[in-house]
Amino acid sequence: MNIPQLQTALTDYFAPWIQALGLEVAAGDTHQVTLRLPLSEQLARTGGMVCGQAMMAAADTAMALAVFSHFGQFRPCTTVQMSSSFLKPLSGQDGLVEARLIRIGKSLAFGEIDIRSAADGKSVYRASATYALL
Amino acid sequence: MNIPQLQTALTDYFAPWIQALGLEVAAGDTHQVTLRLPLSEQLARTGGMVCGQAMMAAADTAMALAVFSHFGQFRPCTTVQMSSSFLKPLSGQDGLVEARLIRIGKSLAFGEIDIRSAADGKSVYRASATYALL
Amino acid sequence: MNIPQLQTALTDYFAPWIQALGLEVAAGDTHQVTLRLPLSEQLARTGGMVCGQAMMAAADTAMALAVFSHFGQFRPCTTVQMSSSFLKPLSGQDGLVEARLIRIGKSLAFGEIDIRSAADGKSVYRASATYALL
Amino acid sequence: MNIPQLQTALTDYFAPWIQALGLEVAAGDTHQVTLRLPLSEQLARTGGMVCGQAMMAAADTAMALAVFSHFGQFRPCTTVQMSSSFLKPLSGQDGLVEARLIRIGKSLAFGEIDIRSAADGKSVYRASATYALL
Repeated sequence: MNIPQLQTALTDYFAPWIQALGLEVAAGDTHQVTLRLPLSEQLARTGGMVCGQAMMAAADTAMALAVFSHFGQFRPCTTVQMSSSFLKPLSGQDGLVEARLIRIGKSLAFGEIDIRSAADGKSVYRASATYALL
Repeated sequence: MNIPQLQTALTDYFAPWIQALGLEVAAGDTHQVTLRLPLSEQLARTGGMVCGQAMMAAADTAMALAVFSHFGQFRPCTTVQMSSSFLKPLSGQDGLVEARLIRIGKSLAFGEIDIRSAADGKSVYRASATYALL
Repeated sequence: MNIPQLQTALTDYFAPWIQALGLEVAAGDTHQVTLRLPLSEQLARTGGMVCGQAMMAAADTAMALAVFSHFGQFRPCTTVQMSSSFLKPLSGQDGLVEARLIRIGKSLAFGEIDIRSAADGKSVYRASATYALL
Repeated sequence: MNIPQLQTALTDYFAPWIQALGLEVAAGDTHQVTLRLPLSEQLARTGGMVCGQAMMAAADTAMALAVFSHFGQFRPCTTVQMSSSFLKPLSGQDGLVEARLIRIGKSLAFGEIDIRSAADGKSVYRASATYALL
């Protein structure tokens, strides 16, 4: 799937509350998808830092898109497990959310997500996730 | 903290995007906080199921409130790690998000979160989380 | 499965290195299994504390036995994901490893494990785990 | 720390039961440590596959050594959280356990571990871990 197709999938298959994140597809191929998480007052808690919940939501969304991209189209799947580590604050800049598939089995897919600060490239969040392919 | 105080903390210390979840404090004491996650079209992905991202966000929010409630007031803290398991869909009903502290150390707090369907009481989501107390 | 059957399964289906933990089945029914992890110099790192690796191994083993116990016999299954939190040291006493099934689906099972100090009953370790049923 | 120093640390600071894994230091610098996990009947469950518990134990051990290596000497630390994903079996060959530090803070360190089959280089296990620096 190319970038416009992935951007359309983001509109078609995700809840309005997820669309309120304002995610923009930055890159994508059959193994990974990168989304931009734009800086926004809506996502900031006290102190101007992007709330951790937004990072988890963006990570899970990017991973689902990476699964779609792998199969070339929407694929029903559901998150089974997701483990997130918050390395440092994301503050005053956009985030780049890179989701990579690391193994696709018959019924399960495994992936890893890395969120970096767009300005300085530093990793602020890492996650691993397991998806059931339906 | 009593229920009105916890509800106020929810407004004062969380991002507007988190407030859009419409969480309502249902119960709280020094060890746990229960939030109601109301059914909403904003949170539904295709098929009417509440999106998993909303469950993770509600769980993390409930846990932060449980930390505040333990200390009797806002306490600066940050999520270090959160591991979520999605047991079954939450569909067509509110969720009850119960966050329990299981250990408070000097610099780290550990908690567990359980989301149940409000109508039938079945567990749909479980998580464990680690917080750094700042 | 009763306690002797579970103890036999522990010998039949696990690696010799796991048997070196000296685990003893303390209780079991169709939803949970409790193992005793005996205090041993073999498992102690500097300072007399039981090494965390032994707690993870005992937890995973107890959960596999809980799956067997649920089905009434050995059931081929494989750990997909396991998330462990280390709450406090286990030092100078046995551990009680309680594994509970929280959801059994067609192809996946979810469980939670709690390790408590045998002497004072305090929780020292918590984990959640996902198993693929083969 | 060089390879002989790391190998000595493996003997000095870990429980006898961990030493029974037969881990060999293959590489190490200030950010990562690689251990070889030798194929052994002691670690095999039915079917000749290396048991998952051994992979978790080797991963946690490699990460602790990576922390020591970063500080140039033994550093008291304790695992706070560890999340493991089991991608595929490790069967009939050694494993290469690579632990990388991804962030060292004042009181917490974050790392990721990848275990690959020594013969074919395929990833069989991934984990993330959080350590408290004491």
